[in-house]
Amino acid sequence: MRVKLTDTILRDAHQSLLATRMRTRNMLPIVDKLDEVGYHSLEMWGGATFDSCIRYLNEDPWERLRELKKHMHNTQAQMLLRGQNLVGYRHYPDDVVEKFVTKAYENGIDIFRIFDAVNDVRNMETAINTANKLGAHVQGTICYTISPVHTTEKYVELAKELEQRECDSLCIKDMAGLLSPHAAEELIKSIKKKVSLPISLHCHCTSGMAPMTYMAACEAGVDVLDTALSPFSGGSSQPPTESMVAALQGTPYDTGLDLEAFTEIAEYFKQVKEEYRSIMDPISEQVDTNVLIYQVPGGMLSNLVSQLKEQNALGKYKDVLAEIPKVRAELGYPPLVTPTSQIVGTQAVLNVVMGERYKMVPKEVKDYVRGFYGQPPQPISSEMIAKIIENEEPFTGRPADLLEPEYEEKKKEAEDLGLVRNEEDVLTYILYPSIAPKFLRGEAEEEQLAPVETEKPPQKSSSPDTGIPTE
Amino acid sequence: MRVKLTDTILRDAHQSLLATRMRTRNMLPIVDKLDEVGYHSLEMWGGATFDSCIRYLNEDPWERLRELKKHMHNTQAQMLLRGQNLVGYRHYPDDVVEKFVTKAYENGIDIFRIFDAVNDVRNMETAINTANKLGAHVQGTICYTISPVHTTEKYVELAKELEQRECDSLCIKDMAGLLSPHAAEELIKSIKKKVSLPISLHCHCTSGMAPMTYMAACEAGVDVLDTALSPFSGGSSQPPTESMVAALQGTPYDTGLDLEAFTEIAEYFKQVKEEYRSIMDPISEQVDTNVLIYQVPGGMLSNLVSQLKEQNALGKYKDVLAEIPKVRAELGYPPLVTPTSQIVGTQAVLNVVMGERYKMVPKEVKDYVRGFYGQPPQPISSEMIAKIIENEEPFTGRPADLLEPEYEEKKKEAEDLGLVRNEEDVLTYILYPSIAPKFLRGEAEEEQLAPVETEKPPQKSSSPDTGIPTE
Ligand SMILES: [Co+2]
Ligand SMILES: [Co+2]
Repeated sequence: MRVKLTDTILRDAHQSLLATRMRTRNMLPIVDKLDEVGYHSLEMWGGATFDSCIRYLNEDPWERLRELKKHMHNTQAQMLLRGQNLVGYRHYPDDVVEKFVTKAYENGIDIFRIFDAVNDVRNMETAINTANKLGAHVQGTICYTISPVHTTEKYVELAKELEQRECDSLCIKDMAGLLSPHAAEELIKSIKKKVSLPISLHCHCTSGMAPMTYMAACEAGVDVLDTALSPFSGGSSQPPTESMVAALQGTPYDTGLDLEAFTEIAEYFKQVKEEYRSIMDPISEQVDTNVLIYQVPGGMLSNLVSQLKEQNALGKYKDVLAEIPKVRAELGYPPLVTPTSQIVGTQAVLNVVMGERYKMVPKEVKDYVRGFYGQPPQPISSEMIAKIIENEEPFTGRPADLLEPEYEEKKKEAEDLGLVRNEEDVLTYILYPSIAPKFLRGEAEEEQLAPVETEKPPQKSSSPDTGIPTE
Repeated sequence: MRVKLTDTILRDAHQSLLATRMRTRNMLPIVDKLDEVGYHSLEMWGGATFDSCIRYLNEDPWERLRELKKHMHNTQAQMLLRGQNLVGYRHYPDDVVEKFVTKAYENGIDIFRIFDAVNDVRNMETAINTANKLGAHVQGTICYTISPVHTTEKYVELAKELEQRECDSLCIKDMAGLLSPHAAEELIKSIKKKVSLPISLHCHCTSGMAPMTYMAACEAGVDVLDTALSPFSGGSSQPPTESMVAALQGTPYDTGLDLEAFTEIAEYFKQVKEEYRSIMDPISEQVDTNVLIYQVPGGMLSNLVSQLKEQNALGKYKDVLAEIPKVRAELGYPPLVTPTSQIVGTQAVLNVVMGERYKMVPKEVKDYVRGFYGQPPQPISSEMIAKIIENEEPFTGRPADLLEPEYEEKKKEAEDLGLVRNEEDVLTYILYPSIAPKFLRGEAEEEQLAPVETEKPPQKSSSPDTGIPTE
């Protein structure tokens, strides 16, 4: 069965390697070519791109969407939506979610990939229903992690629930690079037995296993693989598109794509990469297998180091690493992804630094225990609940049910501030109230990149006489 | 069946990514740890390291071997030997080959991996026989390439011949990253059917397929995989050791190695990498699938560009790319590896730039056609022979049969120059007569590295409030 590809070059690839800084002007000259490749879809919006556009790039994210979409005649436009968090970092009320999904659809999104950090489908519900009503392709997502409660059976149940909610396809999302070839095979085969939806697999190369995991996934019947064009592949990004195309050629999973079609596009993005050389973090281009030992994503490790440095407690790094799995277990094994990675990490640091566990508990941890982020994968013990929120009763309903509608009120607020040209502006304001006003007033400035250094001459090979010895 | 690992961190990994510049002082502090991991072997000598030691590092390569060996109590010491070329770039007479192999063995080499660029076993014969007599482990190598004459049957024949010559194991050497998972499976299975020797697989990640090829190789019954510790893995180096260990855990091919054993070692080599940051070529860290389209290794492409620039003919780049496969076919499809990559590449440039094919033919090409490099994989047509060497008759015997013994004479020469403390010095002098005298007199200087820049602060993530968003 042919395998299809989704290229993440316009979203996750640069979010992972380039702190989400790629400009629309770097994308537009090549979209026509990308559109001709024959991809299943291009992931090109959502995730952190919305935030980055207004915070750093002085770009209207809605305008980016419309401009890219103009060039996409053969390829579906795909976005990543953080469930009830949309493209922000808190839960928004249902009226905002409905409006956002509608506007994203109207501006050009074909496929909505919708996920929730703790796999609580109730946090995806409004987005799924809205996108379904609009007739968009709805992809329900399973965030993959490893824990005693994240069994294959549980993932299959979640897949079935997403099917019942009329998702058109599924995504297995391995944001930390934890999914082994072996586990992928079992997971995909098990889901395929019970659910008839096409499955997309989204892995990050962080631990170096992803290309192998993709091969195993093909043998298990995966339908779509997420890859990134080679200049922005590997490290904390996706496996390289061209390598997957080449590796699958002549197998039953052949993508049918033409390798030569990528030459010009890859060359183009190599040049783009040079423009951004000054902000590329070599760490994110590296394989890091610590994630497999501590189950802590690389980004979280560097956060820990900074937190400990600030408190002059870098010597406690190993203690904190040992504390993280304990805290994660006590909090019901949330996948370690934003925002739960911060919740677990911060608490682990406090537990170690204060010399007494849970002596100090930040508001986010309390809110998590209160159920405001959704249902933890495993119920939290009553002892832990008592320790963290004392005699409060955790909320067990759908978190967004606690939220009052706010679209109309915020719309008026934004209008009074003179920020609004259209409904998209209102959404921008609601999502990022602290930075949107400056941007919407046209007072934001594009972050400057360091000038490109003139390239160093390539290092001489070992033998100057005979060129580059390959062995 | 458990799969074993050979780590290339001390040889091919830095040859591929660091122009072979790693110093012995960077190796010694970590060898004990490497020795404890449980590797099948450590590739730690040969290839370009010998040349680099005396040309750039002011280090005695023999001393490096002895020093490293002192710490290797559990792990076999492995070297790469270029057949009759030893660790140089021309054929040496048999007496020199015998002496070199003997001294390498006496100084500590356990496993000799022996290859020839055109897979002519006669160029490996003296080295194989000598190492066999010494009781060393002899690994006969198959250089992998793609051409109409490089069929599975031909590779199996070569494997059988290596077995008949009493090799203890085989290596499939994919120096350009051309071997697909599919092809690896077929090749290994076919060899395993006819030959009972253990098989090592050595791939470069150049095209991004290697990790997938390794997985397929495991399923086909490979015995040993060549990997590189993560800080010096990927790109034109080998797949990351830790990722392979992780990916194979819990499968029938489990390496049995402990992931945690690598944490400290990888941390160490990350620091080493920082020392060399100034000479790392980002190109060699990149996936490059052009090799799959043009079957031209990355290093060869950059050589072409420089040659064309020198002649103000960069506009003919595409013509040269199209010419290469033609020349390669006319020369009997040699694998494109040193020195044949230079032979084919230079002739292709001349054919295009001169405006008439084979109007100008360099001495190396003539010598190749004369049979001095061994037998081309496919016989060269009589028309081509006439065009290149006119009415000369090509030599069809073993190339080294044309060479007079030279050890004793060169030894005297070196002694007269006052260069000799021991027989190893004589070999150094014979291998590199132009640079060895300065080195042996103690007048060479270590190439200086640019000072390490103080690290830039890591780029801010998209959301400064909530840490690094993973999605
Ligand atoms: Co991702
Ligand atoms: Co190699």
